[in-house]
Order: sequence, then structure tokens, then C-alpha cells
Amino acid sequence: MEREASELFEEFKELSASEFFRRNKQMLGFSGKIRSLTMVFHELITNSLDAAEEAGIQPEITIDLKRVDKDHYILKHKDNGPGIPKNYITKVYCTMFAGSKFRNIQSRGQQGLGCSGCVLLSQMTTGQPARVVSGYRDGNDLKGIEMTFKMDVKKNKGLVLKRKPVEVHSTGVLIELQFKDVSYSLSEQGAFEYMRRTVIANPHAKIIFRDPTGQKFIFERATDVIPPLPKEVLPHPKGVTADDLIFMAKHTDKRRFRSLLTSSLSRMSNKRINEIEEATGIDLNKRPKDMKWEEAEQIVDLFGQMDFMAPPTSGLIPIGKEQIEKGIREILDPEFVATTTRKPKTYRGGVSFIIEAGISYGGKSGRVVGDQKRAEIMRFANRVPLTFDQGSCAITEALKSIDWKRYGIRDLENAPITVFVNIVSTNVPYLSTGKQSVAPEPEILHEVRQATMKIARSLQKYINAKRAAKEEEMRSKIFEAYVPVILKEAAILAERDVPEYADVLAKVTRKPKILGEVNNG
Amino acid sequence: MEREASELFEEFKELSASEFFRRNKQMLGFSGKIRSLTMVFHELITNSLDAAEEAGIQPEITIDLKRVDKDHYILKHKDNGPGIPKNYITKVYCTMFAGSKFRNIQSRGQQGLGCSGCVLLSQMTTGQPARVVSGYRDGNDLKGIEMTFKMDVKKNKGLVLKRKPVEVHSTGVLIELQFKDVSYSLSEQGAFEYMRRTVIANPHAKIIFRDPTGQKFIFERATDVIPPLPKEVLPHPKGVTADDLIFMAKHTDKRRFRSLLTSSLSRMSNKRINEIEEATGIDLNKRPKDMKWEEAEQIVDLFGQMDFMAPPTSGLIPIGKEQIEKGIREILDPEFVATTTRKPKTYRGGVSFIIEAGISYGGKSGRVVGDQKRAEIMRFANRVPLTFDQGSCAITEALKSIDWKRYGIRDLENAPITVFVNIVSTNVPYLSTGKQSVAPEPEILHEVRQATMKIARSLQKYINAKRAAKEEEMRSKIFEAYVPVILKEAAILAERDVPEYADVLAKVTRKPKILGEVNNG
Repeated sequence: MEREASELFEEFKELSASEFFRRNKQMLGFSGKIRSLTMVFHELITNSLDAAEEAGIQPEITIDLKRVDKDHYILKHKDNGPGIPKNYITKVYCTMFAGSKFRNIQSRGQQGLGCSGCVLLSQMTTGQPARVVSGYRDGNDLKGIEMTFKMDVKKNKGLVLKRKPVEVHSTGVLIELQFKDVSYSLSEQGAFEYMRRTVIANPHAKIIFRDPTGQKFIFERATDVIPPLPKEVLPHPKGVTADDLIFMAKHTDKRRFRSLLTSSLSRMSNKRINEIEEATGIDLNKRPKDMKWEEAEQIVDLFGQMDFMAPPTSGLIPIGKEQIEKGIREILDPEFVATTTRKPKTYRGGVSFIIEAGISYGGKSGRVVGDQKRAEIMRFANRVPLTFDQGSCAITEALKSIDWKRYGIRDLENAPITVFVNIVSTNVPYLSTGKQSVAPEPEILHEVRQATMKIARSLQKYINAKRAAKEEEMRSKIFEAYVPVILKEAAILAERDVPEYADVLAKVTRKPKILGEVNNG
Repeated sequence: MEREASELFEEFKELSASEFFRRNKQMLGFSGKIRSLTMVFHELITNSLDAAEEAGIQPEITIDLKRVDKDHYILKHKDNGPGIPKNYITKVYCTMFAGSKFRNIQSRGQQGLGCSGCVLLSQMTTGQPARVVSGYRDGNDLKGIEMTFKMDVKKNKGLVLKRKPVEVHSTGVLIELQFKDVSYSLSEQGAFEYMRRTVIANPHAKIIFRDPTGQKFIFERATDVIPPLPKEVLPHPKGVTADDLIFMAKHTDKRRFRSLLTSSLSRMSNKRINEIEEATGIDLNKRPKDMKWEEAEQIVDLFGQMDFMAPPTSGLIPIGKEQIEKGIREILDPEFVATTTRKPKTYRGGVSFIIEAGISYGGKSGRVVGDQKRAEIMRFANRVPLTFDQGSCAITEALKSIDWKRYGIRDLENAPITVFVNIVSTNVPYLSTGKQSVAPEPEILHEVRQATMKIARSLQKYINAKRAAKEEEMRSKIFEAYVPVILKEAAILAERDVPEYADVLAKVTRKPKILGEVNNG
């Protein structure tokens, strides 16, 4: 029996973003008990670090995870950031696709989904409201507010249950959430490992954590240097599409297209504008709204042919090779570590990025599987640990493509090493909403390989020197053991006294002090 | 320098769903030129099949892909479905998170993102509007409308450029879209293979495709049987969470909680309601809005302990083993095929699903790599081919975990076979927004293994019988060649005439006609 369209469309309806994600929570990374809790830690820590750094504050985060029952926890997460003004609290925590990070700036969060996702998960699993205490400055005043709220899923906004001013002694946010169907784990994908890696890549941050057994862990900061604040950079002409130009033109308040171009793109001077006008014959004095798609395409095609200075890299703040080394030494206490920070490069023609890498050997490097040490790959994007979807990530792909034998490592999987890779970009090309793997852009693969091969060479020198030193030591031992015997027997044979040989022997056997001479280039 | 919160929050803003996905198009599966075009085919074909079936029409889709320039195409996609009433056209194609498929019903699309995603991609890459001609019934009238529109990304809705009534001769939708930065490919992940697989899993559908070289392909339907329309089924008590109950209670128009329960859940009789009241002590005559979280949790806990009949499976419409066989025979023309459709099972306690599988050998089975045949795994969810993210999919995982040697296949990768697996469910647990891989729920893994092992055993019998027949044939040939010689020589030796042996020999050598006796159990 045929049914007609009007009848079929009776069911037609529109979902809010929150409603959509309530039905598809796995798209926020909430799948599996361990992963769900790790994602919560990730979202809250990420947000605290971003907020503190933006405000120029050395981040200190205090996390208290209390077990109520099997798979049921109360999480208290407190930071010393600038706080959230009272009118924004429910927007931050209850509205999806809302945030302050939609600029072309390097930040850990990019999508306006993180905090609201945690509140959604809490509400879906426990029905409990969220409690937030925010301390923030308003002019000269330090204000404090406490709010208890739920998320109105259909409306994609907050529903305040209680709200009262409270006395606070500093700025910062405390959020308290309950979760069920999640699980705290010490595994590689668990919340504890997430914090450990966070501190390696953020040696300026301090995390104090009380675990469900009541044990307190303090991840000390390894440095007092706050990373410089990334600057918002204008998009580079080689990175924009015709659609971007039309979108900008539609939503600008500039009167002329030329001023839109100079104010919205980097490396765009009046001289370049004149070149564009000349080459395309398009009158750039026209109003932005009069710009046609074909013209935008012509301009973008021309951008592709023009020579521009590389994108400004003031927007990119790498951790820095010294800081990575400090982070690794603080947490892994290795025998050897080499680190490198590459020069900025671009992918997709105009998005700049930096690759940083570190390799460590011995100490707590590698991961323990049974009674064996295996290689450990720590992936980061803008200092954020990526713990899931390792298989599809550009970083893993690049590391696996390296011929490790050339660097004295017979097989990567079974080497007692930790490889650290961080990609820094205003625009990390994530493969999925869960933000756990980096798209295999050819330029990114290339840079990860180059960075890793460089430090692998240092490691190789170290391993070779260590091996040589060991052999030398063995040879010396043989020397030290046999020379006296031979001298003695020879003296007896020659019927003479045994000569004084100690000084001479010492000179020979103690000669090469090899280990100190290698450094991490 | 510290900055205060109010300053930091000046940048706070909210994105529309379209704006969010404009920034994150890879989350819709639009990444890479080949994949992007395949995703477009996927979304449009999926929608046409769903629409036609819902209206009880045998689907026929006509697709015309014209190449304008390198990586630049015009796509015309026409179906014979019920059409879209004029007021819904821009909602379907320009509003994300909108659709008619948010019910608990088995359908190919589930998320209200597909069609609007295609329009977004077209607009982002070409700036061109979409053109739609819709023919639909309005009471006794057949109405036709043609519309040209763009998507207003900030508002997440359509912007109509032209609209006029047109004469149509049947119901259905024609959509015309332009794309750049996409690419048509004959590879396994390309659009052509996508259509080929679609027809295997939908033997009742017909696709007529004109490729960019102008060549016309007709994928004929292998059967005239339209699959029965899946029924909307109420969620099963074992599949609901406390949050679901509270959410229902909040948005219902029922006066009492007991009538909400009986009308919203399957297997819920007044008798069961009384049992629940007795066991929990909760008064179910209360108004839904008065239901507390703790009470909802108590009820859900009780659901977990109660015995219910399995979920109604009227909502699940498998392809059926005969139809799968027809589809495979039509497209792969194999030497041997075995198929099976398992009984409904549930995952996560209350979501029912069915696994179907087919295995084919010879003919066009397997994929050709160089001059070798490799195994081909065709994954489907509700008859939709899953072409990407193979590695993380439950179907791949289950197939790889099978000990293929036990079934006479030395190594799955290099066998000249095609394995077909379809999961049927009102709620396929996808791993990502791109809907390309199924979450590895233990029950799903188990069912895929069971289904595949069953048909693998039939294949093994066939292969063994084929081998035995070949050996038998060889033995016969030896017999036929030598017996006459021996007889002749023996006759000479005995100085007698050679006897008439042809009839006797024929009886002996032609005996076992093995191949015909095996069937696909």
C-alpha cells in the first residue's frame, strides 16, 4: 500500500544539539566505562589549562574522585583560573556548540562541546544536577557565586535550580558532578595515565589528585615558566577557500572588499591588493556583499599562485625542547632523553603547525607488559594527550613507517623506550568528534618522521656508546685481571722482582670515559 | 599579566549545527576526494531507498554524474519515492539535526544530517545553489514544485532563491548539486563500488547510473519482492535507562506514570505494572512530572531483574537468506554461495538485532589485486554498505577472529571469496558520526562469528567435494587411458580378440556425479 508524502512527513522534527548528542553520546567519546571517565578528565582538565593560561595564571588543578558504589563516582574538579562570570556559567556547561574558542587560535579545546558533554553524561547516568562555584574578578571586586543546575536537553540550555553569592578567596572554578556507568582505571587508557601524560606535556602545570582509595598524588610542576599566550592569527591566504571568502563577506561590517581582505587575512598589504586587482580585473572597492562566487574563486586561485611569506607563527607556541625534556625527566626519570622542536610548516597549503618530539630510554620509559618492557607512544595535540584511536592517527602511522633498525632498535614494539610527539597548530585536523586522532596529512607525516628520526639518531649514538663502554669495561676487566698474573709469572720465570705496574695499568684501563661525552645534540 | 574573566568571555559565542559542521566537515565523513563523493552517493541513495520503501514503492534511482573539469562534477540524483511536500524541502536539505527518522524504527538514516550535509559540501566547494524538483501527492492531486536554494549556515536553514510549480508525471525527488574537490573512482572505496554493494544488499532496488564518461550502467533488480515495511517498535524495558524514563516523563502528555509506561515501552502490561508497584512500593498513579530520579532508577533496576519476553522483532526486517543469495548471484555470478539469517538477539540488554551473512566462491567473488584474488569483506548495516573505517568495525573484528583454517581456508586475506555481513537493528551502535563502523558489542561479535562459521562449513563441504570430484575425475581419466591398453596387450598375449569393454568402463568411470549433490544447507 502506497503512503503519501504528507503522511510520512507528519513525523518530521528538529533536534537540538544536546538532544542529538544525548542520542549519540559515543560521538563525544563517551563509549565504554574507562574511556568515558577519561574523556571527562580530559574535557575538564583541558578547559582549566586553557582558562588559566589565557589569564596568565600558572595552572593548578585539584581533583578529587570519590567512589560511591561500583561504577558510581563523585568528581570534584577545581582550578585556579580566572573563573566564569555568573551569566556565562550555564552557557559554558549546558549549551552545546557554545564557547569562546572559535577563533583562529591555538587552544586545547576547539569545539564548544567538552564541558557541556560532561554535564550531559552526568545527567544521563545519575539524574543529578551539576554544582559550580565560580570566583571571578569584576573590575576591582572578587565575586563568588554558587549555582546548581541541570541541562534542559530539548532547549540546549541550563535550568538553574539554586543560585547564591558565596565568599571566595581567589578566582577559579569548582565543578562537582556525579557519574554512573564509568570506571576508574590505572590502564594506559585510564584517567590516571591521562593526568601523568598531561603533566609531561605541560611541565608548568600542577595537578593534585585524590584517588578513589583516598591516596593523594601530587604531579609537581617541573618548571615555573608559563608558556607565552598564543596570539590569534589571521588566516593565511593559502589556507582560505572561496567559501571562506564568501562567508566572511556575508558576515562582515566592512564597507569594501579590500578592507575585508586586509583586515581578515595575514600577509595582505595594499600592495598585494593592487596586484590582485591587476591580475584578476576585479574591482576590490566593491561592497563585500556584492562579491560573487566566481570572483572569490578567481582570487583564491590567484592566492595559490602568488608568493606569500609563510603564515605568522606567533600564533604557535610549542612546548619547547628544554621543557619537554624537563617534563620527561620529572615523570619518567630516564637514563637518556633527546628532544627536538621543528620549525613551523604548513599543511593544506596554509595551516601552520609545529611538530615536537622526544625519545627517552631507561628509567620508567616504555610500558610494562607482564615482565617485559614494550615501547610506549605518547601522542599529543596542543599538549593534550590523545589516548584513543591510536591506529588511525597520523602520529602512529609516521612512527611505524620509520625503519627503526637503522637506529639500532630491532623492533619498535618491544623496545624499552617512550616516544613523545606533540603537534601544535591553531587547527589540528582531527579525524573524529572525539578528537583522538590526527588526519594523515602528508606534511604532518613527513614532519613527525623527520623529528623522530633526528632524536632516534641521538638515541642510537647513546646506545652505541653505552655498548662500546660496556665492551671497553669488559676488556679493561680482563686486562686488570690478567696483567698482574702475567707480570708475576714473567718475573718468576726471569727470576726478577715483580715491577710496580699499578700506575701504568690504571692509565691504560681507565682511559675512555665514554658516557659523558655524548650529548643530546 | 593576568586578564580577568569578563574580558575573556567577550569572545563567547554560539554556533549553529551547520556552522559547527562547516568547520568540521570531516565529522560528516567528508575527508579525501574519493571518500567525499562516495559519502554523497551514500547519503542520497540511502534517503531515496528509505523514502520509497516507507511509501511502499519499488525503488528505482537514476543517477547522472557529469564531469565539468578536474575534480568538479554535476550530480543529478532522481528517485521514484513519495516526494517531499513543498514546505519540507528546505528543512530536509538545509537544516541539520532535522528529519523524520528519530523514531525507534529500522531505517538506513538515523541522524538527520545526511542530505543537509551534501548541500553544505556542495555550497562549500562551489558556492552553487541546490536545485530540487519534487513530485508529491496532496490528497488526490499530484503536485510538482521546483526550488533553487542555498543554505544559510548561520541560521541552519534554507534560503530560497527561486520557487515555481512545475508539471510532474509521477512522485519522486530530483536533486541537482555541484561539487568540487571530489573525485569519482572505481576503487573499493569509490562511488561505483558503493552502488554495486547497495544492489547486492537491496535486490529489490534498481539503479541506473551514467558515469562521467557517458557510459550507462543498469543494476537490475534481482527480485520483485518489496521488503515488508519495518514497524516502529516501542523500546524494550531492558533497553531503557533511568534518564530515558525521566526524559519521557518530562515530554509526555499522559496524565499518569503507569499509562506512560504501558504506552511507551513494549512488553508492559497492567499485570507487570502491578508487579512493579508491589516490588518497589512506588505509586505509579502519580503524574509523570512527579517521578523522581531515584524512583526511575529503582524501576530500571527492577527491569533488569524481571523476566520479559524478548523485544518484538516485527521492527526488524532482515534481507532474508534467499534474497541475499539472489543479490549475490545477480552481481557476483559465483560458483558457490551459502547464506544465513540468524534469529534476533539483543545487545546492551534490550536492543534487538539480527545478523545475516553470505559467503560466495568463484565467479566475480573476491577482489582482484594485481593478478591475484584476495578476500573481499562486504559490511552492511540495515542494507547500507559500510565502506570506510574497516579496521575498527565489529564485523571485521569478528571475521578476523575466526580460525579459517578449520574451514579449509588457509588464510582469509588471500582466499578468492566474498564474505557478506549485514546487521539489522533499529539502533545500530555506530562508532562515529560518519556511520562507517559498528561498535564491538560482545553479542554482535558473537552473532557475526556464529553466522559466518555456519556458512563457512557449507563452503568447506563444497570445496572438499570439489576437490574429491577433481581427484575422482583424474582417477577415471587414468582408468580410461590405461584399461584399453592393458586389455589390448592382454588379448595379444593370450592370442585372443580384444573384448567389448566400452559399456562396462563407462559404468565404472562415470559413477560419482559429486557436484550436484552438495547444497547450501
